[in-house]
Amino acid sequence: MRMVEIIEKKRDAHPLTAEEIEFFVHGYTAGEIPDYQASAFLMAIMLRGMSDAEARALTLAMAYSGEVLDLKDVASPVVDKHSTGGVGDKVSLIIAPTVAACGLPVGKMSGRGLGFSGGTLDKLESIPGFRCDLTVPEFKAQLRDIGLVLTGQSANLAPADGKLYALRDVSGTVPSLPLIVASIMSKKIAAGADAIVLDVKVGSGAFMKTLPEAEALAEGMVRIGHEVGRKVTALISDMNQPLGWAVGNAIEVREAVAALHEGGPLDLREHCLAAAGEMLYLGGQAPTAEAGIEMAAEAIRSGAAWSKLRQMISAQGGDVSFIDEPDRLPQAALIEAVPAPCSGYLAAVQTDEIGMTVVALGGGREKKEDPVDHAVGLLVHYKVGEWVEAGTPLFTIHANDAEKQAAARARALATFTFSDAPVDPLPLFYRRVA
Amino acid sequence: MRMVEIIEKKRDAHPLTAEEIEFFVHGYTAGEIPDYQASAFLMAIMLRGMSDAEARALTLAMAYSGEVLDLKDVASPVVDKHSTGGVGDKVSLIIAPTVAACGLPVGKMSGRGLGFSGGTLDKLESIPGFRCDLTVPEFKAQLRDIGLVLTGQSANLAPADGKLYALRDVSGTVPSLPLIVASIMSKKIAAGADAIVLDVKVGSGAFMKTLPEAEALAEGMVRIGHEVGRKVTALISDMNQPLGWAVGNAIEVREAVAALHEGGPLDLREHCLAAAGEMLYLGGQAPTAEAGIEMAAEAIRSGAAWSKLRQMISAQGGDVSFIDEPDRLPQAALIEAVPAPCSGYLAAVQTDEIGMTVVALGGGREKKEDPVDHAVGLLVHYKVGEWVEAGTPLFTIHANDAEKQAAARARALATFTFSDAPVDPLPLFYRRVA
Repeated sequence: MRMVEIIEKKRDAHPLTAEEIEFFVHGYTAGEIPDYQASAFLMAIMLRGMSDAEARALTLAMAYSGEVLDLKDVASPVVDKHSTGGVGDKVSLIIAPTVAACGLPVGKMSGRGLGFSGGTLDKLESIPGFRCDLTVPEFKAQLRDIGLVLTGQSANLAPADGKLYALRDVSGTVPSLPLIVASIMSKKIAAGADAIVLDVKVGSGAFMKTLPEAEALAEGMVRIGHEVGRKVTALISDMNQPLGWAVGNAIEVREAVAALHEGGPLDLREHCLAAAGEMLYLGGQAPTAEAGIEMAAEAIRSGAAWSKLRQMISAQGGDVSFIDEPDRLPQAALIEAVPAPCSGYLAAVQTDEIGMTVVALGGGREKKEDPVDHAVGLLVHYKVGEWVEAGTPLFTIHANDAEKQAAARARALATFTFSDAPVDPLPLFYRRVA
Repeated sequence: MRMVEIIEKKRDAHPLTAEEIEFFVHGYTAGEIPDYQASAFLMAIMLRGMSDAEARALTLAMAYSGEVLDLKDVASPVVDKHSTGGVGDKVSLIIAPTVAACGLPVGKMSGRGLGFSGGTLDKLESIPGFRCDLTVPEFKAQLRDIGLVLTGQSANLAPADGKLYALRDVSGTVPSLPLIVASIMSKKIAAGADAIVLDVKVGSGAFMKTLPEAEALAEGMVRIGHEVGRKVTALISDMNQPLGWAVGNAIEVREAVAALHEGGPLDLREHCLAAAGEMLYLGGQAPTAEAGIEMAAEAIRSGAAWSKLRQMISAQGGDVSFIDEPDRLPQAALIEAVPAPCSGYLAAVQTDEIGMTVVALGGGREKKEDPVDHAVGLLVHYKVGEWVEAGTPLFTIHANDAEKQAAARARALATFTFSDAPVDPLPLFYRRVA
């Protein structure tokens, strides 16, 4: 088999066999196929697309490019969730302990923030001592012992994805549906979960800007998951405004702590209950998603979910006193409540710009190797559809640098649109794809 | 300017500016843009195409990626020809001295054979001592002194093309019309000719298999040539059977020597006169192409063309005794006339397979670095439309290895199709594009 002939087939829109796709994935992972052939192939995939059979073969080849965890002897079933990335998306910190507290083990490998989208690992690392670099044996042991792990992607799992993602980033081949599907699902398959709930974000603060795009992605991932024998559902959720109020690292952890004490923003709590209910249903712990929601709410009410989060943070080396007293978490030096410039119904928020404002404050990354300031961020105090009175605090900046604070003020102010006429609130979810 | 954004623009079918195309060509030639970005960009060009303005900018950027010869102080006007590559295509050996003998300087940089298509340099190197590696000063001096040069492409001319061609070859991006146009025309522009006749081959022994493809290529090249102020015409010529009889290196030189003595196959002589006539007309030496044909025929009849070839071979270090007595040229050890398996009108020849048969005999290259056996080849004794009597020699194999000889016999036999009903002969030319 010659790689150039495989490239030519895709270029000419001929279907590829599973063997050809495996030849590419294994050869590329092993360093036998050079980057310049891989990038031409990725561009051909980007412009020619892939059939379901091709996307399935790609996903499986990537999943099996390294170790594939078998968790049956550790905990079964194991449930996982994956968010396609958003702004203020701290839900894993709430959902994972809630589901685990209901007796369904959650083993989740998360990512870091990149661009406007935040990452669960960065948020957890606000807590001194917390380790995101568990080895596979540590991952398994903790999953067996306390039924909950939130850690980074092991380098042994789906190594093809890491290598391909880096290449896509520099070759203009990121926004290809089959490549996105294969990237997400290969990691989920390699991480060994039996059931996976996908949170596909749509809107101005998501990678998928329109509902049809989000639906295509959700359907693609669910189909692949089913084909490889996993239970998978996708919830298409709104990302036209930040989820909750907080966008940052430590300030999102504080908001998650509040949610696990039945406090904090309502939209966040409602979103988390719905996703947790879906996980409990999919994992066989609840007879219906609705019953799952009840079970999750009870786990929060009883304090069981909160205890589970403390247990996990402690198991991964984190100092729980920082979440017991969240004010001890990193605090910004400069905190400024910015008043609304006018009165009106909040009509829209350019949410990716909110995310990029936090990146510019130092709270996220433009490039993978950038450091992150855990203290900084923004709190947005209103939801779309709410009446805002001029002069009341519209958002609060947490900054560590006066110049960046001023830049954040101007940039964030420009993201809000107001209306004199009433505006409908945004839904939390658009659709469930199963 | 960031290369990834230029890739994304082409990927999304947005027009590129000349500055963006120059940024790519100069950055890639300088080694600042990596191969993996260049190959993704080439694939995007391959699948999205290029506007005339983009193709023009690409051609010029490639032409000016290195030295651009100015031949005005040496000889003016200078005429060049370029063939898109075929089987048995020894016409440069005949046309170039013929045109030069008529007083119009010909300075031509040729290529080597690759795949089924032969190369002028390989043929000329059948002659002991002949040098194809003239420096630019040597090229200019010889052009001034004797008005005729046939040498290899100087590494200083259009270096972007050499680098891009090597990358296209391994990334599945060879058959892209704008990339082919830019590759050919950038070299021609850099080589400094004022007038260029393009011989665009079409058929089973050419890269362009259909007339519409050949027309698109011819029109693209002529348009670019005009836009950069060159006189350019393209002749679309038949390549559904070998041109002349001989396919190989030394045996093609022998056939060219015969043609310059008014011998050898008629189709070859007629093709050469037409192309020479066009060059003489385009270079301003003849009032019409028809008058140019007469002039060319006279140059051959008088022996002036033959003298010019001898002069050039001598100037480039070749031993002219080998063309004065062509039997001294490399001879194969095994010569076998293969009889026609049946009687019938010759209906078709799978001409690229004839070319590949010669490659397998050792007369051409699968890869650029392969050595070439100058002695081997095939002589095809019939033209499409002619009546072939079973048992008469259909083709003659010149081999240096009995095993390869047997393989060539079987492979070449399979390329011929016969018909009981009369078959029209093939035209030499289909169209002139000006």
